[in-house]
Amino acid sequence: MVFEASEYADRLRRVRARMARQGIDLLVESDPANMFYLSGYDGWSFYIPQAVILPAGEEEPLWIGRGLDINGARLTSWLKRENILAYPEDLFERADRHPMQFFAAEIERRGWGRGTIGIARDCQAMTARSRDALMAALPNARFKDGDGIVNWERLVKSPAELAYMRDAARITERLMDAFFQSVRPGVRECDAAAIVQKVATEGTPEFSGDYPASIPFFACGPNAATTHLTWSARRFGANETAILQASGVRLRYHAPMARTMQLGKPPAKLVEMDKIVRAGMDETMAAAKPGAACEEVEAVWRAVLARHGLTKESRIAYPVGIGYPPDWGERTASFRPGDRTVLAPDMTFHLFLGMWMEDWGFAISETIRITARGAEALASVPRALRVEH
Amino acid sequence: MVFEASEYADRLRRVRARMARQGIDLLVESDPANMFYLSGYDGWSFYIPQAVILPAGEEEPLWIGRGLDINGARLTSWLKRENILAYPEDLFERADRHPMQFFAAEIERRGWGRGTIGIARDCQAMTARSRDALMAALPNARFKDGDGIVNWERLVKSPAELAYMRDAARITERLMDAFFQSVRPGVRECDAAAIVQKVATEGTPEFSGDYPASIPFFACGPNAATTHLTWSARRFGANETAILQASGVRLRYHAPMARTMQLGKPPAKLVEMDKIVRAGMDETMAAAKPGAACEEVEAVWRAVLARHGLTKESRIAYPVGIGYPPDWGERTASFRPGDRTVLAPDMTFHLFLGMWMEDWGFAISETIRITARGAEALASVPRALRVEH
Repeated sequence: MVFEASEYADRLRRVRARMARQGIDLLVESDPANMFYLSGYDGWSFYIPQAVILPAGEEEPLWIGRGLDINGARLTSWLKRENILAYPEDLFERADRHPMQFFAAEIERRGWGRGTIGIARDCQAMTARSRDALMAALPNARFKDGDGIVNWERLVKSPAELAYMRDAARITERLMDAFFQSVRPGVRECDAAAIVQKVATEGTPEFSGDYPASIPFFACGPNAATTHLTWSARRFGANETAILQASGVRLRYHAPMARTMQLGKPPAKLVEMDKIVRAGMDETMAAAKPGAACEEVEAVWRAVLARHGLTKESRIAYPVGIGYPPDWGERTASFRPGDRTVLAPDMTFHLFLGMWMEDWGFAISETIRITARGAEALASVPRALRVEH
Repeated sequence: MVFEASEYADRLRRVRARMARQGIDLLVESDPANMFYLSGYDGWSFYIPQAVILPAGEEEPLWIGRGLDINGARLTSWLKRENILAYPEDLFERADRHPMQFFAAEIERRGWGRGTIGIARDCQAMTARSRDALMAALPNARFKDGDGIVNWERLVKSPAELAYMRDAARITERLMDAFFQSVRPGVRECDAAAIVQKVATEGTPEFSGDYPASIPFFACGPNAATTHLTWSARRFGANETAILQASGVRLRYHAPMARTMQLGKPPAKLVEMDKIVRAGMDETMAAAKPGAACEEVEAVWRAVLARHGLTKESRIAYPVGIGYPPDWGERTASFRPGDRTVLAPDMTFHLFLGMWMEDWGFAISETIRITARGAEALASVPRALRVEH
C-alpha cells in the first residue's frame, strides 16, 4: 500500500465529517485523484464509468468499475476483495443501458438508496449521461452536488504525502536539468522532449517516476507565447526562448515547475522580465504564510507587477498533489482576487508566474509548501533565466 | 496546417449533413478529438471549458476557450482570427458564474439561440455543470443529444489521415522494438518504460512523435493479469511475462499495438495461448472486409476461442485515429455481439485480442485498415510470443 491503513482511515473520517456538514449520506466519487485518495486505486481507467461509493456510516467503501480493471483494483486498493465489484460488460458503451444501473442496484441492495447522495456535477469522469443514468435509477434518493468534498480535504498534506511530493521534486530537478542540457541550436524539439520524458519516467536510482497529469509543455521559438502546445520536429534556433513546464511524479504526487531558457543573447525585455518575475516570486513566497488569504498573497504579486506597469489576468497559484490526466490542479483554492481561502501549514501550491505577451513569454514557477513563516520551494533549481550562448 | 482546406471543408459538409438528418441547427463540440477534426485546434487545454461551435449554415465555426489558449488556437486552427474567442478569465472556476454564459451570449448574438442545439451528454470535456450552465443561459433554444455526430464521421479515414496513421505505425514499430530490446531480467520496469517513451516521442528522423492518448501500458510479472496499471521500480525477473500496449502517434493520429514477451522458458499454457490467439488474429482479419457487420467479425474470433473451450467477454475492436487523453477509442462501432455496423474500406480499428486470466495474460493487437478484401495491419511487427532466454 502507498499509505498506512491509519492514513486512509483519517481521510475517510475527514471526508465523512464534511459529508455530514453538507447533509450527504452517500458519496459517489468518480474523479480519479479522489478515488486514489480514498481507496488507493490507481489505474488508467478513468475514460469509462467507475466510482468509489462512500457511505456516511462505518461501512467500508465500494469500488465499482469495469471487469477488465478488477485485477488492477485488487492489486492497488486497500479495500476488501468483496467490496471491489465489476459491472457486467454488456452494460458498457450501449445506447439502451448504462453501467450506472449496476451502481444503482448495488446502492439499493445495501439500503443506501433512500438517502441523500452526493455526485459531482463538474467532474469530467462522471459525464452528464452517467449522472443522469444514476439519478434515474435511484428514484427514492435525493441528490446534492458532491463537487469538491474530497478535493477540499486534500488541501493540507500529511507528512507521508509531503514525503512523496519531495520525491517528485527530486525528479523535477532531474528533468529540468535534462531540459537545460538538451535544448541547443539545431536539436529537434521532439528529441529534447524525449529526453525530458525519459528522465521523468526513470525517476532516481531509489524510486521510479510516474506518469504526469499533463505532458511536458514546451513553449519555444514561434510557440513561446503559447501555453499548451506540443513539441514538433522543428529545430531550435540560434536565438530563441524556450520555456518548459513539467512535473516529476512519484506515486501520483506531483511537484510541477516552469523555467525559461534563452539560446543566444537574451533580448533586453526578457532580461528585464526575468528580474521582475524573480522579485515577484520572492515577495509572493514570503507573503504566502499561515493566516494570509489567497487573494492577499496574489495582491503582493500584483503590486510588484504594477510597479513596472504590468498586469496579469489569470490566477497565479492552485493546489497540487495527486494528479491524473488531464490536469494536476486540485480545483479548490486559487491565488486570485476574491479568493478568501486562508493558508495553513502544509498546504501545497503550484505558484506559476507566467507572463504571456503577444509573441513572447517568460515563466518561472515553484511547487511550494506553506511553512510556519512563509513558503518553501520543494525543488531546488536556480530561477534565473538560463542563458546558453 | 495539418490538412488541406478542402479536407476540412469536406469534414464540415459531412458533419452538417448528419446534423441536418438529426434536426440539429448548431453543434457545441467539446471533445478534443472532435475539436481537432473540425478546426485543427490542438492544445492540451481540455481540462477546462472550451468548444468549437458549428452552425448548420455556411458560416465558419467558432472556437471559444480560455484566454491563455488563444495564441495556441491561432497557431493551430484554420479558423479566421475573428472566429477565435476567449471568455473572460473571471468566469473561470467560480461557483457563482460559468464560462458557458459567455458561449451562450455569443450564440445569441449571432442569432443562433432560437434553434435546436446539439450538445454531447457523454463527453468528458463537457461536464454536467458546463452543460447545465449552457442550457440555462439559452432559454429560447431546444436541445438534442449531440453525442457521436462528429465521431461517426471520423470512422472512414481519408488518404491524408491514413498517411498520418502509417507514420504513426512506423513509430509503433520502433517503440515495440525498444520494448523487446529493453525488457531483461534485472532491468527496472520504469527504465524500460522510459526508453519506450523516449523512442515514441522522438518519432523518426523524418518526423516527430506526438504524445499518446494513454501511457504505454506494461503488464508484467505480478501485474501480468492487469490492463491499466503503471510501471514501477520493480526489476524484471528471470522467468516472467511482459505485455506492452502502446501507440506511436503522428499529429494526434494513433496506431496502437500490443505484444507479449516472455523472459525465460514460456509456460506451456502461454505457448498454447499464443497459437490460439494468432490463429484468431488471422481468421478475424480475413473476415473483417467491406460488407461484414462488426458482430459477424467478432463471431469468427468467438468461434476460434470456442474450438479451444475459451471465451472472452469484452469487445475485441474499436475504431482508432485521432486521440486525446484519456482514450484513443473513437466510441462508435465495436466488434461485439449486437453491433450491426457494416464495415467499409478505409475504416481503421484497434483489433485487440487480449486474454486476461486470473493471474496471467496474453495479448496481441493490430491497428487494421479495412481493405477491399479483408484487413491490413498498419504496422509490421512479428506477432508470435517474443521469447528471451
